[in-house]
Amino acid sequence: MPVLPQPVQDLIAAFERLPGIGPKSASRLTFYLLRAAEDITDNLTEALSAIKRSTGSCSVCHNITLAEQDVCELCSAEDRDESIVCVVEEPIDVLMLERTGGFFGRYHVLHGVLSPIEGVGPDDIKMASLVERAKTGKVKEVIVATNPSMEGDATGLYIQQQLAPLPNVRVTRLARGLPVGGDLEYADQNTLLRALAGRQEIN
Amino acid sequence: MPVLPQPVQDLIAAFERLPGIGPKSASRLTFYLLRAAEDITDNLTEALSAIKRSTGSCSVCHNITLAEQDVCELCSAEDRDESIVCVVEEPIDVLMLERTGGFFGRYHVLHGVLSPIEGVGPDDIKMASLVERAKTGKVKEVIVATNPSMEGDATGLYIQQQLAPLPNVRVTRLARGLPVGGDLEYADQNTLLRALAGRQEIN
Repeated sequence: MPVLPQPVQDLIAAFERLPGIGPKSASRLTFYLLRAAEDITDNLTEALSAIKRSTGSCSVCHNITLAEQDVCELCSAEDRDESIVCVVEEPIDVLMLERTGGFFGRYHVLHGVLSPIEGVGPDDIKMASLVERAKTGKVKEVIVATNPSMEGDATGLYIQQQLAPLPNVRVTRLARGLPVGGDLEYADQNTLLRALAGRQEIN
Repeated sequence: MPVLPQPVQDLIAAFERLPGIGPKSASRLTFYLLRAAEDITDNLTEALSAIKRSTGSCSVCHNITLAEQDVCELCSAEDRDESIVCVVEEPIDVLMLERTGGFFGRYHVLHGVLSPIEGVGPDDIKMASLVERAKTGKVKEVIVATNPSMEGDATGLYIQQQLAPLPNVRVTRLARGLPVGGDLEYADQNTLLRALAGRQEIN
């Protein structure tokens, strides 16, 4: 005998398919929505049904954009430095970097990372168009901002190799070290080693 | 200049309104759905739009039921003991108790808990119908399974007072003590005190 009506079970199952939401959270969210004000559920339903329909991908940097836009706001902004391109794995990384307020160049979203284990090669991510962009002559620096993982590092190395024939393009990557607000005591050995190797003058 | 297209911002905002989902989780879920297979989003959208439309409330125990059902499965099950009624705060609590597989009576969902601070009185929750059910003469025991909080305890006390005039109805409540798998060292003083007071013979 089913304890829960089918529609309730369906919504729990749908929530459970999302990342970071386990069976308990899925139940909690569902029961919350059951007694929440009508507009909270409506809001979510509408936003969900709109998301795929109304978004597209920027033809330059492959970041998310409105469906009717060909080039995203960041790529068409006159006041951003087009000579510096920051390469990230996913659109969410653009958001994170923008929130720092410390980068004023352009972006390039790979939509993935090289991973021989998972069978992801250069053709499976937006690698070719990055090389194309670098070849135009406008780009002076490519900042590799992939995740500090084995795949992210390998992707950075691959980018560096691909762009090596272009003498005017510097390839850099984000610094490794202790996270701000972190505790040296709890830092892992690798991070500590990188922090030591990358130590800088205090001035 | 908006970094994210409006539909993306809308979905993040809609997720943020849900309990236990902060700005970071909301962004992560949204960006996940943007690149997820179409059916994951569709699934969630459909389940959401169905949930309010197709569910109702059981006229006996006030648990969630299908819109077309008057009485829920648990209340109409012949093999469940109608002489024992377990009183819970929310429909999700019924699910949790059913998952234990240790209760074979009926339920009563209060849809809240008495809280003078928040202005919730007996008329704001399903209290009157509980007293009515107890008065029918079929009920021999009412198990108070409200949360072990100040409000939950006060609600239990109120139920006990309301049912005191009915000599044939026992009012009990769930045991307090150490959580199974818990560590005595980390138990708070109150729980330990209750566990001590409620100690039982080993046999």
